[in-house]
Amino acid sequence: MEEKALLIIASSEVDSNLYYATKFLAPDPFIYLQIGNETLILLNDLELERGKREARVDTVLSYSHYENIAKGKGIERPDLIDVLHEFLRERNIKTVVIPAYFGVRQALLLQGKGYNLEVKKEPFFPTREIKDQREIGYIKDALKKTEEAMDMAISLIKESTIRNGYLYNKGRPLTSEEVKKQIALYLLEQDLMAIHTIVSSGQDTAYPHKEGEGPLRANVPIIIDIFPRSLRHRYYADMTRTVVRGKASPKLRKMYEAVLGAQEKAILMIRSGVDGSTIHYALIDYFKSAGFDTGNMDGKMQGFIHGTGHGVGLDIHEPPRINRQGDKLKAGHVVTVEPGLYYMDIGGIRLEDMVIVTEHNPINITTYPKDLEI
Amino acid sequence: MEEKALLIIASSEVDSNLYYATKFLAPDPFIYLQIGNETLILLNDLELERGKREARVDTVLSYSHYENIAKGKGIERPDLIDVLHEFLRERNIKTVVIPAYFGVRQALLLQGKGYNLEVKKEPFFPTREIKDQREIGYIKDALKKTEEAMDMAISLIKESTIRNGYLYNKGRPLTSEEVKKQIALYLLEQDLMAIHTIVSSGQDTAYPHKEGEGPLRANVPIIIDIFPRSLRHRYYADMTRTVVRGKASPKLRKMYEAVLGAQEKAILMIRSGVDGSTIHYALIDYFKSAGFDTGNMDGKMQGFIHGTGHGVGLDIHEPPRINRQGDKLKAGHVVTVEPGLYYMDIGGIRLEDMVIVTEHNPINITTYPKDLEI
Repeated sequence: MEEKALLIIASSEVDSNLYYATKFLAPDPFIYLQIGNETLILLNDLELERGKREARVDTVLSYSHYENIAKGKGIERPDLIDVLHEFLRERNIKTVVIPAYFGVRQALLLQGKGYNLEVKKEPFFPTREIKDQREIGYIKDALKKTEEAMDMAISLIKESTIRNGYLYNKGRPLTSEEVKKQIALYLLEQDLMAIHTIVSSGQDTAYPHKEGEGPLRANVPIIIDIFPRSLRHRYYADMTRTVVRGKASPKLRKMYEAVLGAQEKAILMIRSGVDGSTIHYALIDYFKSAGFDTGNMDGKMQGFIHGTGHGVGLDIHEPPRINRQGDKLKAGHVVTVEPGLYYMDIGGIRLEDMVIVTEHNPINITTYPKDLEI
Repeated sequence: MEEKALLIIASSEVDSNLYYATKFLAPDPFIYLQIGNETLILLNDLELERGKREARVDTVLSYSHYENIAKGKGIERPDLIDVLHEFLRERNIKTVVIPAYFGVRQALLLQGKGYNLEVKKEPFFPTREIKDQREIGYIKDALKKTEEAMDMAISLIKESTIRNGYLYNKGRPLTSEEVKKQIALYLLEQDLMAIHTIVSSGQDTAYPHKEGEGPLRANVPIIIDIFPRSLRHRYYADMTRTVVRGKASPKLRKMYEAVLGAQEKAILMIRSGVDGSTIHYALIDYFKSAGFDTGNMDGKMQGFIHGTGHGVGLDIHEPPRINRQGDKLKAGHVVTVEPGLYYMDIGGIRLEDMVIVTEHNPINITTYPKDLEI
């Protein structure tokens, strides 16, 4: 019988599907195939022996072996698709099932050699969306250390002194850069890698992904968003708190209460079977009725200008999405719930917890307190 | 006249071409276009205002604007290609030029809407391969700090005491994990992120990309390969040294001399116009005549089992390749030269410097000494 093969060509340091399928980390692209229940990888001479020891697949094959077959047929410098072609021919495979992000050039080369392409959307491996107990343990481990780093950062801010509207620590201005570095160093000591951490203050908080720079200010929002990856098991955690060192304006307090209320509302709605878009649109309504509009104001997008949440696992952003597009929630999903409000004149507020989806009540695995003024 | 557009859809945190073209870092995929000399990006509401301030492109457009046009035409939940379609129609563009790694699903959707696809191989932006003075300054900056981290790591090993064939530091076994962590912490303090650093010893060194684990051993090779990325300018550096704490065997010393000789030979060959494969094959011959064969021995790939070098810039591995495939070297390329030998019974040796290609003599920008025994 003619067979199909699932096919990925990628670097497993970049492509989490490939790491998930092989548990083998390699910086350069390699070929992964699944034929029936058999999993195989083709590795070049550099990685072949390490792959035989480390990769959790059924079969590790030599890329050079098939490269030499191609050379024997007169191809002077066989490219990766020539080499793959020799393997697929040996197994009599005519159809390959590839992920949506599979490179167009290699896809067209395969098509040119007569293969049928079936493009499979995410989740390419459906089991990857649903976290098992081991994976939930990894995520909780990453989150625990993330909460410790958050506590350390908030303590730094809390213990700062205020002079002329700016925060000082040991006589020096406390900067966004300094707090981010302390977070990264703390996490690296615990074998987590935090990049693109956000510690923004004042006007910068109106831009949700602005990482922040310069001296931190008193009496204005400071957004701290930490999402490190474990260097041991490669799972992520993700959390955000917003604090004010000093006094928050009444309007900011009202915004904070609205975001907190929206987060509570969203978490209550989370359970297996609910579509992410339903939750997201409920929050848009919630904010509207609380007096916080979203849209173009004075030529700038303001309000609740991002999604409510996303799946977290081997990628920081993975299915399911809790946003306007939405995906159906399933038991075993681990998602963030992170409503926020952003206005150019006041700044931004965002609160983010991680939640496990179940058939019944959701489990909020983030325990760190939420206090605006510190 | 009907126009073409260069098109990338990617996250600029992942895709260095997109970062190169926009200098705008965003975690989620966005649309980049180049039409004639005009550069444009389409950003969602979350990123729109930050993009207007930060992105170095001519035009920043609202994704929502075109999404609403698509909705107005009856598409209930327009996907990214529906939205892009509205923009391309407005500009009367029928042909898009996409990189080789462009996702097959989106490519087929564009084709389905009647667009001509032209797939452009790397370098997608030819100027990216050729480093200007500013970029060379960034790479040198990263390399300087990498050499400091290397010196710190080698000093740790040098100052260790030897007991029963293992290295001890302050009475505790000195491990691969400990040295890697010290390297990462040192570099993070300097705003560089080092991941997948290699500090391997003994048998593990026979596997070139084995990151290493457990107690470091005396009188056997220790390979240290550090390739951090600057968090400020995002350029990489890359260097490797191999040391022995204690006494190297005569065979290991001979291997080291061969690798050092090969590296010197390769560097002398590097100049504009030479093909990388010419250099690589010259090293294979060099090792062979020095008595070091490459190939399958006792069922395992051993010898000089990887390429001679690769370009370095915004990616750690980028064109040109100095390996069996090869690419033509050009003035302004910055490449590694990193021959190595790997045998299961002895272990591995690798030495890696970074070199600037010129019309004349190559410039080796790595100054750290090469001493086997320490």
